[in-house]
Amino acid sequence: MKFICRKQDLLNGVNIVSKAVPNRSTMSILECILINTTRDVISLTGNDTELGIETIIDGEIIERGIVALEAKTFSDIVRKFPDDDITIDVDQNYKTLISCGKLVITIIGKSGEEYTYLPDIDKNNSIIMSQMNFRDIIKQTIFSVADGGEGSSVQQTTKGELFEVFGDYMRLSSLDGHRISIRRLQLRDEYENEKVIVPGKSLNEISKIVNGGAEDDIEISFSNNHIMFEFGNTKIVSRLIEGEFFDIDKMSYSNYETKVTVNRKDFVDSIDRACILVKEGDKKPIVLNIMDDTLTMSINSIVGSMNEDISIEKLGKNLMIAFNPKFMLDALRVIEDEYIDLYMVNAKAPCFIKNEEESYIYVVLPVNFTTVQ
Amino acid sequence: MKFICRKQDLLNGVNIVSKAVPNRSTMSILECILINTTRDVISLTGNDTELGIETIIDGEIIERGIVALEAKTFSDIVRKFPDDDITIDVDQNYKTLISCGKLVITIIGKSGEEYTYLPDIDKNNSIIMSQMNFRDIIKQTIFSVADGGEGSSVQQTTKGELFEVFGDYMRLSSLDGHRISIRRLQLRDEYENEKVIVPGKSLNEISKIVNGGAEDDIEISFSNNHIMFEFGNTKIVSRLIEGEFFDIDKMSYSNYETKVTVNRKDFVDSIDRACILVKEGDKKPIVLNIMDDTLTMSINSIVGSMNEDISIEKLGKNLMIAFNPKFMLDALRVIEDEYIDLYMVNAKAPCFIKNEEESYIYVVLPVNFTTVQ
Repeated sequence: MKFICRKQDLLNGVNIVSKAVPNRSTMSILECILINTTRDVISLTGNDTELGIETIIDGEIIERGIVALEAKTFSDIVRKFPDDDITIDVDQNYKTLISCGKLVITIIGKSGEEYTYLPDIDKNNSIIMSQMNFRDIIKQTIFSVADGGEGSSVQQTTKGELFEVFGDYMRLSSLDGHRISIRRLQLRDEYENEKVIVPGKSLNEISKIVNGGAEDDIEISFSNNHIMFEFGNTKIVSRLIEGEFFDIDKMSYSNYETKVTVNRKDFVDSIDRACILVKEGDKKPIVLNIMDDTLTMSINSIVGSMNEDISIEKLGKNLMIAFNPKFMLDALRVIEDEYIDLYMVNAKAPCFIKNEEESYIYVVLPVNFTTVQ
Repeated sequence: MKFICRKQDLLNGVNIVSKAVPNRSTMSILECILINTTRDVISLTGNDTELGIETIIDGEIIERGIVALEAKTFSDIVRKFPDDDITIDVDQNYKTLISCGKLVITIIGKSGEEYTYLPDIDKNNSIIMSQMNFRDIIKQTIFSVADGGEGSSVQQTTKGELFEVFGDYMRLSSLDGHRISIRRLQLRDEYENEKVIVPGKSLNEISKIVNGGAEDDIEISFSNNHIMFEFGNTKIVSRLIEGEFFDIDKMSYSNYETKVTVNRKDFVDSIDRACILVKEGDKKPIVLNIMDDTLTMSINSIVGSMNEDISIEKLGKNLMIAFNPKFMLDALRVIEDEYIDLYMVNAKAPCFIKNEEESYIYVVLPVNFTTVQ
């Protein structure tokens, strides 16, 4: 195999597909990037068998072929090459010469025989949105995916996000037992209904690759076991998680005894300050004492104590309620509104943070607290 | 004690003196910042007994006093405070109220009784230079200070830099057994000769604080056991290292058999690329084959091999010589010249990198190598 391409094109491609290459794997072939020029394009592939990414780069193919190159080494080499044309020349023993002018680096590649190719996904059933909307909606929901590592007892379905299409809108939901995040996105067209669970890990990597332009589209296609994302010259395929997701629509959103309207930034800054007093591993709650036009935030830990009054508008009863400050912050930080509304029933019932049109709904469970003096 | 100051002033002061506060210490009082308003100024001090920093901040003193506050917590709190006036109010039990408007954070401080104050240094004997020159000359020599941690067998004197004043110029030297860095700086005035060894750790912290302005001066004073640096409202005192430094002037600089002139950036880029092929802990040398107008760089490791030709000008004999690429890079990266001169005698003798006026001299010892095919 032999081809010539620009360093920057190769580097971009390598950076994209590397997101699907595991750092360590029991199958060393998965630690490689597959380069394939047999189909008259230069394609790069990374695949950890759960998530696979393929991208096509510009260049001139001189001889067709396939090689698998250790991803970390190859990407380090490409990054450090002069910003010029790079020639990649692979002989029948997969000895790979990477050269530019009077510079030659030689590494040993592998045959691509054992490499797992991306599955083919039928595109009959696909939806389109802007990359910017796609990236935003992921960022706004991914933090409450349960982070269950290998062997964790977390329920499988909570390690993913629920992707739903209802005609002309899409809904993403995630939950981890302490909070729920729900975002709704208006689509440009009507589509068939869909309901799948996509691994949080896959979405996390994908959102790093999508460049986020409002003018650039992403096409999402569904099959029984996979979801495919296509944009630019890149195709990403992720396995789906099997099982039944928690039934979000069972929750009752409309009742409340206390409604608070607060400036989001003031609220975030105050909780953020309270976190200084909470040492790692210590589960001190932040206590909210909601009165007529004032919210008193207080926290009391081994490090010290804090009291801060914030101006609010209140409807309904006074209430004292406590939260894990981190869970509150995660939700508040991905809302763009200047003012937000909190809906509460009592100190034991979930707090809903949502706007009127319900394009976002964040649910945070309260925690027990002892009154701070 | 009680005083009011601007958040940003307090934060700047805390950031400066924190550089001398150890993360962990057997003496918990050393993990504190001392705040002292008894001398009609608000002074902050950090001191790990080797390095001490004192800075004075603007503000209004309402009641004189002294308190020691745990540095990490206090600096986190100040950083997260609103950008406004902060009031610090300490009662006789060192209960410390840090407040701004309707926000109050309370932490418990300590008495300053056990705190080690900075020693007084006589300023009869002091030199002055721009902060920019001072910071540059440190950066250009500090990397070859021996990094001997606690209990390391490294010679004490090599953990510091030799600071020398000879009339109207200063010289800084450091060495670690593999390389030597020497920088000379012209001073504005004539001074008394000085020769002291300053701990590399102190210089490292100081260079982070000095803001580096060409118009702002730094004054350096010497005593038998200490060196003091003063600039702006800040005073830094470091202990000196006792002992005899390696006699640099014994080295012979002028003989050479091979002189090479090379574009510094090309040389750096090539060595940098070669490093990709060297895994952590692997001590592969980079081999330089010096011929009439070409320098061939080569390296051969378990990862792969590299060959690159660089254009040079050469005087004297052809030579094949090898170096630890990291040691070469460290020196080359702090030289500003576009072209540099290397002076060599043979493959076993040190290589000198220096300019004509010898304002810098970097010495790198070669390493053994087996010829690369």
